Amino acid sequence: VFALTYSAPAGLQLARQHPTPVPASGEALIRVTLAGICATDLEILRGYMQFAGVPGHEFVGVVEQGPPHLRGQRVVGEINCVCHACALCRRGLPTHCRQRTVLGIAGRDGAFAEYLVLPAENCHVVPAAITDQQAVFTELLAAAAHVRDAVPLEPEARVAVLGAGRLGLLVAQVLALTPVRLDVLIRSLQREALGARLGLHMAPAATADAGAYDVVVDCTGAADGLAAALRLCRPGGAIVLKSTYAGAAGVDLAPLVVNEVRVIGSRCGPFVPALELLATGRIHVDELVSAVYPLAAGPAALAAAGAPGALKVLLRPESS
Amino acid sequence: VFALTYSAPAGLQLARQHPTPVPASGEALIRVTLAGICATDLEILRGYMQFAGVPGHEFVGVVEQGPPHLRGQRVVGEINCVCHACALCRRGLPTHCRQRTVLGIAGRDGAFAEYLVLPAENCHVVPAAITDQQAVFTELLAAAAHVRDAVPLEPEARVAVLGAGRLGLLVAQVLALTPVRLDVLIRSLQREALGARLGLHMAPAATADAGAYDVVVDCTGAADGLAAALRLCRPGGAIVLKSTYAGAAGVDLAPLVVNEVRVIGSRCGPFVPALELLATGRIHVDELVSAVYPLAAGPAALAAAGAPGALKVLLRPESS
Repeated sequence: VFALTYSAPAGLQLARQHPTPVPASGEALIRVTLAGICATDLEILRGYMQFAGVPGHEFVGVVEQGPPHLRGQRVVGEINCVCHACALCRRGLPTHCRQRTVLGIAGRDGAFAEYLVLPAENCHVVPAAITDQQAVFTELLAAAAHVRDAVPLEPEARVAVLGAGRLGLLVAQVLALTPVRLDVLIRSLQREALGARLGLHMAPAATADAGAYDVVVDCTGAADGLAAALRLCRPGGAIVLKSTYAGAAGVDLAPLVVNEVRVIGSRCGPFVPALELLATGRIHVDELVSAVYPLAAGPAALAAAGAPGALKVLLRPESS
Repeated sequence: VFALTYSAPAGLQLARQHPTPVPASGEALIRVTLAGICATDLEILRGYMQFAGVPGHEFVGVVEQGPPHLRGQRVVGEINCVCHACALCRRGLPTHCRQRTVLGIAGRDGAFAEYLVLPAENCHVVPAAITDQQAVFTELLAAAAHVRDAVPLEPEARVAVLGAGRLGLLVAQVLALTPVRLDVLIRSLQREALGARLGLHMAPAATADAGAYDVVVDCTGAADGLAAALRLCRPGGAIVLKSTYAGAAGVDLAPLVVNEVRVIGSRCGPFVPALELLATGRIHVDELVSAVYPLAAGPAALAAAGAPGALKVLLRPESS
């Protein structure tokens, strides 16, 4: 079957005769119908996580082998595959399981392929009201909605989302459903019209008031995002960091201490609330799709996803 | 009167005929009997805060002019002088007052002088059981004890204090009074014997278990303290940053996001609990005094405070 594979130093390659993965006990075999390219995938192509294998962790597909309640169903899947036995799993932090593999990110082949395997317990059936193109956003929307778990969002709190890329526009749409006063701060005006269509208040980051925000969510995906957030956050306020990137950021941490700011790292979120948000129709994801490429054009698709101005680029296996 | 003054590029100088400061309305005139040199003072001599004037913010002294309840009393003083009117003061964050001056740090002459002035409301009378040499630690101990306000300290939680300098040894002594399991992690074995005398469990930082600590308090005062703390902190754990230093730290922030760690900046703390801690006799500060210099030898004293292995260096005005 077709699959994209990555390893260093060969880079990303299209494998036309990749073996169909064989589900282990407790796993489902899923035929991928649509996969999404995420910033993390682009970081992986730069060496992040030293990953080798099939990348990709955003997908929707149909279960071809698995337990009866899933067989033939359209599913999305949580990406952390966990042991349920280690200290962190027992502490209620399964997404931090010390033995975990992560779909397309760590120790497990991912979704840029015609087929993938995943523990059946990770799979969630997609309600009929949600299209494939919407469902493929579940993982990213779950990560976006997880910001609500990181920090209390008081009514009337001033909240800034920094960055209006794929993740920033989802975080902003989720926060716009809460009673905070929300600004989406952007470095170029490129996304202003799209943000406005999504009902968001867009403003230039450079002229935003220093120290004015109770909560700043960094969705820039850039090394200098924390420094920008520290400038915007009020003393005693909170910064939620959503960005991961390979390499070191040079940042003056004195404002963090002097202003007694909290910085909270936030990664994956639970899928059930994300599917519920999608089913409400109040989170607009179709507007975020830049292009759909056939899986065989994967290298071009990943290049397109990394180009300035790109939003979500999707991959559709030919078999679907 | 004698005072040490700092300005760039002249550097630190001894002024022998510095004018005695004149208290404004609501302020007390305090004759300094002992002052302490802090890491922040050393940073100021490197340009931190662009401060110009008399540095020094740790002191004990006697009120010569001021309200009747303070006159003739031995006092210590909170260093943030605030407006009580701005949004941050009204929010209950007076130490972050936007109009604040800070004794010897920002916009206000400090304690490396025979006299200083400070709002009377900032002054706290020192109980007789506390010696001058102990009282001069009140400000630093207040900052150390403020760690308890930054993060919940569950019984049996594994807590690491990173660094065994002036601040680290006070933070560790405060945390040792709570029911956590505490390790003080040090980069050289230099402080091992002193820590053990203080009843602390000392261990080398380099071989401490990665991801083993629920809470890590960075008291290294070094640019790479956060990176070390990120290595030690468990997923979902908390890092309290106590260090300020001038300049940018190069740090890989990916572990902060991937491990969903919280980083909490912590600066000044309230004086009343610190005086209560000193009065119990359970916090040992006399052991932390490296040397006492006359004020006129201030430049040598600041050099000594910055030398490797130095703990607290004190300045005693000749008039006291």
